[in-house]
Amino acid sequence: MKALVYHGPGQRGWDTVDDPTIIDPTDAIVRIDTTTICGTDLHILKGDVPETTPGTILGHEAVGTILEVGKSVTTVAKGDRVLLSCVSACGRCRYCKEGHYGQCLGGGGWIFGHTINGVQAEYARVPFADNSVYKIPDQLSNEQVLFLADILPTSYEVGVLNGAVSPGDTVAIVGAGPIGLAAILTAKLYTPGRIIAIDLADSRLEGAKRFGADMTINNSSEDPLETVMDLTEGLGADVAFEAVGVPQTFELATQLVRPGGHVANIGVHGKSATLHLETLWIRDVTITTGLVDTFSIAPLMRLIASGRLDPSLFATHHYALDDTMGAYDTFADAANTGALKVVLQGNESGTQHAKRAPAVAAA
Amino acid sequence: MKALVYHGPGQRGWDTVDDPTIIDPTDAIVRIDTTTICGTDLHILKGDVPETTPGTILGHEAVGTILEVGKSVTTVAKGDRVLLSCVSACGRCRYCKEGHYGQCLGGGGWIFGHTINGVQAEYARVPFADNSVYKIPDQLSNEQVLFLADILPTSYEVGVLNGAVSPGDTVAIVGAGPIGLAAILTAKLYTPGRIIAIDLADSRLEGAKRFGADMTINNSSEDPLETVMDLTEGLGADVAFEAVGVPQTFELATQLVRPGGHVANIGVHGKSATLHLETLWIRDVTITTGLVDTFSIAPLMRLIASGRLDPSLFATHHYALDDTMGAYDTFADAANTGALKVVLQGNESGTQHAKRAPAVAAA
Amino acid sequence: MKALVYHGPGQRGWDTVDDPTIIDPTDAIVRIDTTTICGTDLHILKGDVPETTPGTILGHEAVGTILEVGKSVTTVAKGDRVLLSCVSACGRCRYCKEGHYGQCLGGGGWIFGHTINGVQAEYARVPFADNSVYKIPDQLSNEQVLFLADILPTSYEVGVLNGAVSPGDTVAIVGAGPIGLAAILTAKLYTPGRIIAIDLADSRLEGAKRFGADMTINNSSEDPLETVMDLTEGLGADVAFEAVGVPQTFELATQLVRPGGHVANIGVHGKSATLHLETLWIRDVTITTGLVDTFSIAPLMRLIASGRLDPSLFATHHYALDDTMGAYDTFADAANTGALKVVLQGNESGTQHAKRAPAVAAA
Amino acid sequence: MKALVYHGPGQRGWDTVDDPTIIDPTDAIVRIDTTTICGTDLHILKGDVPETTPGTILGHEAVGTILEVGKSVTTVAKGDRVLLSCVSACGRCRYCKEGHYGQCLGGGGWIFGHTINGVQAEYARVPFADNSVYKIPDQLSNEQVLFLADILPTSYEVGVLNGAVSPGDTVAIVGAGPIGLAAILTAKLYTPGRIIAIDLADSRLEGAKRFGADMTINNSSEDPLETVMDLTEGLGADVAFEAVGVPQTFELATQLVRPGGHVANIGVHGKSATLHLETLWIRDVTITTGLVDTFSIAPLMRLIASGRLDPSLFATHHYALDDTMGAYDTFADAANTGALKVVLQGNESGTQHAKRAPAVAAA
Repeated sequence: MKALVYHGPGQRGWDTVDDPTIIDPTDAIVRIDTTTICGTDLHILKGDVPETTPGTILGHEAVGTILEVGKSVTTVAKGDRVLLSCVSACGRCRYCKEGHYGQCLGGGGWIFGHTINGVQAEYARVPFADNSVYKIPDQLSNEQVLFLADILPTSYEVGVLNGAVSPGDTVAIVGAGPIGLAAILTAKLYTPGRIIAIDLADSRLEGAKRFGADMTINNSSEDPLETVMDLTEGLGADVAFEAVGVPQTFELATQLVRPGGHVANIGVHGKSATLHLETLWIRDVTITTGLVDTFSIAPLMRLIASGRLDPSLFATHHYALDDTMGAYDTFADAANTGALKVVLQGNESGTQHAKRAPAVAAA
Repeated sequence: MKALVYHGPGQRGWDTVDDPTIIDPTDAIVRIDTTTICGTDLHILKGDVPETTPGTILGHEAVGTILEVGKSVTTVAKGDRVLLSCVSACGRCRYCKEGHYGQCLGGGGWIFGHTINGVQAEYARVPFADNSVYKIPDQLSNEQVLFLADILPTSYEVGVLNGAVSPGDTVAIVGAGPIGLAAILTAKLYTPGRIIAIDLADSRLEGAKRFGADMTINNSSEDPLETVMDLTEGLGADVAFEAVGVPQTFELATQLVRPGGHVANIGVHGKSATLHLETLWIRDVTITTGLVDTFSIAPLMRLIASGRLDPSLFATHHYALDDTMGAYDTFADAANTGALKVVLQGNESGTQHAKRAPAVAAA
Repeated sequence: MKALVYHGPGQRGWDTVDDPTIIDPTDAIVRIDTTTICGTDLHILKGDVPETTPGTILGHEAVGTILEVGKSVTTVAKGDRVLLSCVSACGRCRYCKEGHYGQCLGGGGWIFGHTINGVQAEYARVPFADNSVYKIPDQLSNEQVLFLADILPTSYEVGVLNGAVSPGDTVAIVGAGPIGLAAILTAKLYTPGRIIAIDLADSRLEGAKRFGADMTINNSSEDPLETVMDLTEGLGADVAFEAVGVPQTFELATQLVRPGGHVANIGVHGKSATLHLETLWIRDVTITTGLVDTFSIAPLMRLIASGRLDPSLFATHHYALDDTMGAYDTFADAANTGALKVVLQGNESGTQHAKRAPAVAAA
Repeated sequence: MKALVYHGPGQRGWDTVDDPTIIDPTDAIVRIDTTTICGTDLHILKGDVPETTPGTILGHEAVGTILEVGKSVTTVAKGDRVLLSCVSACGRCRYCKEGHYGQCLGGGGWIFGHTINGVQAEYARVPFADNSVYKIPDQLSNEQVLFLADILPTSYEVGVLNGAVSPGDTVAIVGAGPIGLAAILTAKLYTPGRIIAIDLADSRLEGAKRFGADMTINNSSEDPLETVMDLTEGLGADVAFEAVGVPQTFELATQLVRPGGHVANIGVHGKSATLHLETLWIRDVTITTGLVDTFSIAPLMRLIASGRLDPSLFATHHYALDDTMGAYDTFADAANTGALKVVLQGNESGTQHAKRAPAVAAA
């Protein structure tokens, strides 16, 4: 089969490799019908993720069709159209039993395109299939559910739920890249009173408005702290999300939050930040970090089905799976292309992915 | 002054009575600018509430203007436009300290138009003013916030919050009278996947659709249990609200809920219900009851200000305060008049209640 | 092998039956080293549980040794000493993913000695072994952990956790049979201020004191409502447990609870109760029901290991497994024998169950 | 009257000053019967708290007798023996309404001995008396409840509750000074499986054992990270408390915690710490900070009354109030004197503080 293979820092190829086969009785083999690229894939390509070794197929977000299942798989069967979670769950360890699949101790967690072959390929082996894939209702297209593999649950679980967003809250989101936009979209499920997006790029802030931000602040020219304090009687935001992954934005988030509020870190960090305990110790703040567990796939899928959550705005570019190399070029150059997420479609997915018009079209 | 006075079962008058005066240093005197009538007022008039004695002024929902405050009142002052909560809070007892104002042990709780004179009058004495009234932002009209006095926080706190409505949930609401409609409106703040309204009257079910129900069931002709089970793979609703106040509807709510789900009783009951523990003991259900505390007035007011909660649909009829007697006739005959809530406006409120156009008009 | 077989209402035998064998790849075969009898087993013998058919081996609580595992079992292996939970978990369905194993939709739940053969036998087939058995640390004896199979997690999860017992609370427990005693023992983990046990039998109330009740009320001669109100400034208990399973005790629990408190039903009910909504609707009560999930086995086992939870008081009688028939006689006649739980020990368990002295002995 | 007055960095006196008088109708005047000294008082004396101006009476922990109340005070009266909370609550602002008295916006919060005169004096003016003092049951002595003014609720609310300690948990406490010892004492209310105290001084670690630590680690000679990982199968502690107030101990706490665990900062910090987001972003940690609210005084007082919480170990030294200067010398030299808390008793308190023998004596 063909697959996008990592060949060491800066190098990738759309190579012919062996088809995957069942190894464990809990495996499934899935034909990849629709997949996408994540910012993390770019980090791997830069060489920032040393545990990913050359020769690994990248990708951890996909919709596909079950071709074969191992002997102990009972909840999905050949022919089922399924969403593959970016996080695999053994379903048996302490963390999986608590729904913390991202911390799986039994061989799961984030493994696709990281420590095992990923899903930017024609076929993939899916470990722990019973606990790691989700059947898709007929009325939903592949593209409608694709972003449930990672970006939507990440922003929802690690941002919105960890941050305890509540009706009427002021929510400040530092960073308006894809993960910040997903945070806007999913924060709205709890009807905050006001969502404020903060970024250095006007183009990204325009995106934030399209996704539902009530107000935007370009912090290259405006002081977000002053604005947020003015809006909140000097208290600060109820919830602040860090959605970039650098020390400065984290530190800004901790300044923006009111006494008693929540700072939810969503960004992936490579460096330490300074925690100003000399001011924060007395302010009753709660700071959370987290890797997505994807336990929220089922309720979020129900909301897409009922037209109450519409991730279609993310799909800025479409490519055939065979053109994954070109899709990477577009996605990596987001500053110029405006790419949020690129959708890669396999040959057979055209007849599969939209059995009928998506519900949201009629909404 | 003039006031609506209860004269015993079946008897009321728009009488001239003494103006109220400050009694305790925590009191305020408020000019009533806008008020309304509650189903509970009708119950009192029927004689169902024996602790309300003849001679009592009725009413527990109002917007007004502070005319005078007692010596220890510090948070509001003469001239402030304020919402009067239906529940007074001493602010000092165990329950008030936990935000359970409805259970106040220090002389508060539901007292207006119940154990002390109420607010269907030109003026009212408001006990514990610091903890029982809420300043209104300039951009909101009296009518926009009026229903925060009782019906909206009741459905939100006793229904939506007690029932733990979450994004994606199936919510079944038994009863589509005003309190059921308020439950629909406020449940939507948590973006359930599906709201199902159940009632015996098609006219009320049409109202439910206007307020946002996704589906309605007339249980005089259709079996709601069968329908809800069909929609939920045989499990039942995640949350069921009882919003009527009779045994049958409560029992229906306990049948509609899935294992692990919540039954939130909002209705006011005069009789016992049967609790089918022989089936429920094993089903992990949580059943809650409650009197409103109105701790949610502040966030709900923020949501009205931001245009995300619009209670204007409730105001089906408008009367001058002087015509409170006529307003009662209309409200009591809701089956024919279609009245949900009637708005009573004092003489001076016309110049007060809308300093500028409501935010929602522009939304 | 030998096993206790149900032969229809009133009839049981210690019969020779076929040894169990692996059926599914998720199965394990376990040699039963230590087991016990539950009140539910007596209900089955009375014919109260029609889904249990004649020919079924009874019993759902055991400690044993793994003899063989199916091909997909990865977390336990031959020779492991394990606790068998009374509730089996498929580990793959919606409820199992939320830790609600008691509501398993994938073939688990309470099945042992109910819908499949149970564990009062020399050997047992254990479905879904990876998610349904728990390895036992060397320093704990079989008898120390045996009651984690059912009675302790039942009282802890369905009583203490559902009832939200908190430090300083007044806890009223209606019923001082084994399940009420387990509720006393596990409620103490949250250091309530006062535990009040209520029962009709002085002998059981003496047991309650031994297990840690601060006060006992014999409600054949004393009015528990008056006493509890006197102790709580007229408010009532913070938490009331129903631990009997009849309408009167449930109704008493709902009377004993304070406004804002919790009623946790632990008892198994065969009849409906009356729910006095005419008084309860306004009192902010939360009523819960539930079947045990046994998600708490791991933390409770840690507490037994550290000597902070000591279930040894339950083991009032000991029998050889071969004398299960006699053990039933003793247990069924608890009023005269004083039996709380009888411990049945297999032939080989003597050398297995106490590799060293229990930690609690030294505590 | 006599009072301990701050005269600028390094200078204090036991001075004759004016008696306090009622200023606001919500005030009370209290005769101080028993008081104590806090580490924070030493910080003020060093000049570390610039908002405390020379001339201020120090102290924020006391038991006293009401001598006079303002006109709007209703819940306490002349002659009542009361505990003074270190945190005053206006009872009317947003934060007070949520029980977050430490963040009071209405003039309360930590003001005693900080921005207004404190309680190391013969008499004190107590603002917001209705919401800031707590009546003491007759059977409890002054000394038994004295530490409820600050240290016990601080460790309980900011440590144990923020850290979500649960039965069976492994709790690591970094710092075994008075606040760390109070954390040990109050963590035990939730029956953790294991409490590990970490400090540089063996003398303090011996104290930790006396207060109930299961294990101690001297991190001048032993690596606490290695030990904690060994004890927890390489995962880390469920909860880690920082109870010192320097960057190194905070950073240690963030290393000790398991994925999904809680770090509760209790220490008062003067410098920033480094937050290792490059490792923490993926570990699902929750970090909390906080100033005490003292909402837990009531349940903790009930537990002292029932003998389940015994703070008497803290009272290492006793002085007459007249000898406050000497008490400061002893407390400031804790390394040599072993002082944990010094108890200062007024002249008249001897006849007041123990109407009968403390309950714990009999326990």
